[in-house]
Amino acid sequence: MAARIEDVAEKAGVAVATVSRVMNNRGAISEKTRNKVWSAIQELDYHPSQIARNLQSQKTGIVGVIVPDVSHNFFAREVRYLEGALCERGYKMMLCNAMHQKNLERDYIHMLQCNKVDGIILASHTLKNEVYEKLNLPLVSLDRYLGENIPVVTSDHYQGGILAGNVLAENRCKCVVQICGDVRIAKPSDDRHAAVEAVLKKAGIRCERMGIPMNVFEYGDYKKLVSDLFDQYPEADGIFCVDNIACAVLQEAAKRGIPVPEKLKVMGYDGNDVSRMTIPVLTTVEQQMEPLARQAVDILMEQIEGNKVIGVYKIPVLLVKGESAI
Amino acid sequence: MAARIEDVAEKAGVAVATVSRVMNNRGAISEKTRNKVWSAIQELDYHPSQIARNLQSQKTGIVGVIVPDVSHNFFAREVRYLEGALCERGYKMMLCNAMHQKNLERDYIHMLQCNKVDGIILASHTLKNEVYEKLNLPLVSLDRYLGENIPVVTSDHYQGGILAGNVLAENRCKCVVQICGDVRIAKPSDDRHAAVEAVLKKAGIRCERMGIPMNVFEYGDYKKLVSDLFDQYPEADGIFCVDNIACAVLQEAAKRGIPVPEKLKVMGYDGNDVSRMTIPVLTTVEQQMEPLARQAVDILMEQIEGNKVIGVYKIPVLLVKGESAI
Repeated sequence: MAARIEDVAEKAGVAVATVSRVMNNRGAISEKTRNKVWSAIQELDYHPSQIARNLQSQKTGIVGVIVPDVSHNFFAREVRYLEGALCERGYKMMLCNAMHQKNLERDYIHMLQCNKVDGIILASHTLKNEVYEKLNLPLVSLDRYLGENIPVVTSDHYQGGILAGNVLAENRCKCVVQICGDVRIAKPSDDRHAAVEAVLKKAGIRCERMGIPMNVFEYGDYKKLVSDLFDQYPEADGIFCVDNIACAVLQEAAKRGIPVPEKLKVMGYDGNDVSRMTIPVLTTVEQQMEPLARQAVDILMEQIEGNKVIGVYKIPVLLVKGESAI
Repeated sequence: MAARIEDVAEKAGVAVATVSRVMNNRGAISEKTRNKVWSAIQELDYHPSQIARNLQSQKTGIVGVIVPDVSHNFFAREVRYLEGALCERGYKMMLCNAMHQKNLERDYIHMLQCNKVDGIILASHTLKNEVYEKLNLPLVSLDRYLGENIPVVTSDHYQGGILAGNVLAENRCKCVVQICGDVRIAKPSDDRHAAVEAVLKKAGIRCERMGIPMNVFEYGDYKKLVSDLFDQYPEADGIFCVDNIACAVLQEAAKRGIPVPEKLKVMGYDGNDVSRMTIPVLTTVEQQMEPLARQAVDILMEQIEGNKVIGVYKIPVLLVKGESAI
């Protein structure tokens, strides 16, 4: 016969309320009592079904998170902090990798709806906005415009562009090339490129853009792109791009015998782990994942509680001084 | 009123069986029909509750995955392929980051049990083996010995050590230092160090070990450790360690003016993304995550179907020739 909470309390020699508090991580309870209760829980295999509770409350306590690819260092960091923020609120994360494929993203959204998740956090954008807007459940977008009624949490990319542009201007670059993501879909992160251009224009510095072709996410492709950039702009003495591409820039510069930062300033963006692992260490703009994830979860919770939330929520970014652009 | 499958079929102008096949990704169906069906599903907001089905089948179709920290590049890659392999089998992943904390891991396991997951894949090991052995549900361990009755899927680390040792021996190193993980808990990955020692001993090459202290996972800590290594073994001309630490080795060598690979061979392990992003590119041993994840999911499915599975399943590793040890 399945154990009851009373059995756990009796075995641990504590009150039923204490068992409940331990299981829900509520109230101040000594480490000793806590361990006694957990031992009793494990020994009696006491795991009250969340499913039965879900049926009562009409909530599953599950949030779906859809990212393009969790093995990408940027999304890995995002997912880690989202999971932490959800866990603190008593929610579980169902993780989906849409792998830049619209059929897969569509299947995942449907699957999450069939599993009656309480909400979805989306960092992927392969479907038409009308699909997202018709979804009949709490939704938050990370760094993508999915429709007027869907709130967006994003870094303050314009501020990030100002910070990056200032570094390049203070270092007296004469020709800066920015590597930009696919421009056919407007994204909050596009703002940084406009900001860099504004700063450099004011300082009288030439600023060029180079676009990343569609569906290019592999490091091998980044290397090819960067090699083309060096061929096309041999006069470039400043490059601004995301950290992962900046690694390819450092490698290509080393291969061509161009010293960084002496002859070429390399300014990264994202603040991924890899930015600290390169030679030289990258100067970069860090997107603060922890507050970003918390904000996204807060907004989702607001909606789960029945409130309507719209708008764009911007989280400040940080300049991280390395050795590649100073 | 909630839409029924018949409504979807009528709206799309297809048979009910066709709607079912599209939703379950079964059978050959034209892209045109598929799109018609999905449009009808979205328009009618048709998402049959998985919860009701779960109650009937006594299965949730959810698998819990517990990793130490998904923002770590190694686990990010692992999680991505686990999620892909689970998705192919029609399973959903509930992701948990135990953050090297035993209380958190214990809470997560209990949470997963309360949510009646069909099984757990564990890449974390902070609790006593008896806790895992008493868990009354399908379980697979990744790269950790959690108890005799719990199957383990791991890379063939001994083969990996042979490959790494051969590179160092062929390059005529005279003094190799291996950086080893915490040795107080026996892990499958320890085998690689024994293999390197065996190869080097046979070749008459000196081989030393340096341990990573407990609870050291941060890159800043790795840098300190590596600096200590250079101080302690100034005569070292070969270093073997995981890719992330190898990055710190390359940085420290550059700082001290020691050319890699001319004066120092750096041999990595893991095959993480970062191994291709360094200067010089790392020579490393790649753990093949995709077959590893598939094997883990296959074994979990075996257990979910009611079969007992034990033993250690080894996946071959690959030597990736870079420029740091050739």
